[in-house]
Amino acid sequence: METPPRTIEAEIKAPLTDAGTFRGELDLHGAERLDHRIQEDRYFDHPVRSFKETDEALRVRITTGQSGCKLTYKGPKLDEQTKSRGEIEVGVDDTDGITQLLEALGFEPVARVSKEREVYQLEGITITVDEVEGLGPYVELEKMVPKEEAEDARKELLGMADQLDLRELERRSYLELLLEKEDGDES
Amino acid sequence: METPPRTIEAEIKAPLTDAGTFRGELDLHGAERLDHRIQEDRYFDHPVRSFKETDEALRVRITTGQSGCKLTYKGPKLDEQTKSRGEIEVGVDDTDGITQLLEALGFEPVARVSKEREVYQLEGITITVDEVEGLGPYVELEKMVPKEEAEDARKELLGMADQLDLRELERRSYLELLLEKEDGDES
Repeated sequence: METPPRTIEAEIKAPLTDAGTFRGELDLHGAERLDHRIQEDRYFDHPVRSFKETDEALRVRITTGQSGCKLTYKGPKLDEQTKSRGEIEVGVDDTDGITQLLEALGFEPVARVSKEREVYQLEGITITVDEVEGLGPYVELEKMVPKEEAEDARKELLGMADQLDLRELERRSYLELLLEKEDGDES
Repeated sequence: METPPRTIEAEIKAPLTDAGTFRGELDLHGAERLDHRIQEDRYFDHPVRSFKETDEALRVRITTGQSGCKLTYKGPKLDEQTKSRGEIEVGVDDTDGITQLLEALGFEPVARVSKEREVYQLEGITITVDEVEGLGPYVELEKMVPKEEAEDARKELLGMADQLDLRELERRSYLELLLEKEDGDES
């Protein structure tokens, strides 16, 4: 990667037994509910790198009620425990256009991830409760910070996970989980 | 290229002796002056393909008075005489962001082309008079058409070139002309 990303997405993910129960828990902690949306993510692989091997991702995200889409590059994870990684995201006015442009450059569509997402805010941390098609309910704790604050943010997220009784952390992305599930279903 | 582009940019380019004289000519023909702008184009090369060899281009275009930028992919030229080629263009809300994203994916910035551009319309054809930094004045005749109308558009453009007394056509892009000039200056 030639240019270092400007901000770090510090992130923790955990599977949930039941999304409704967890949302009740968030209410008790005083979390503010910000948003509800349905998202479709289209992932692409690089013409010559395997993003699975390099631990990168390129994604086109379409969100209900928003025009156009977001194009996002995610760099490799920065540590073993959390999902923190460099991220560059831009808004694009034409979803079909950017999809065709990426394909013309040799990027191959590899998977789609659809989910219903509820977003909360608690103590400066974004808490996202997802019902992921084919995977079930998950929660993500997230904070965008300058690169040099990544370690502090990581500790903060782990503290919040503890507070919310999230014991089993998941480092794999929804994309990875879905692809592994597909592999399992096929074998 | 996996996906065929939706529209074709039928295009003819010719060098001008003097931009002012040619603009006078356009006025006499009743051309309508649409726009005046300054553009900076940043060209990128593919991580593993040489766009110079494949006759493709990937460009970030910044235009005075417009927010964000345009990201444009141009496919190989489709015939020998004109500059017609497939084109996919999308608007992006963050010029620095898309530049960093492209570089993270392995696309390398190769050149910048700056020009002052005046745009006219005549008989359904877009006529662009450019003062190109380092190259001088050029004119481009252009029409965006569905792929199946490319041949008709090509003939129409050649007819207009004849009408405007443009004898010497130039198939090379400003990028190619600038890179060749640089090579010439160095040798």
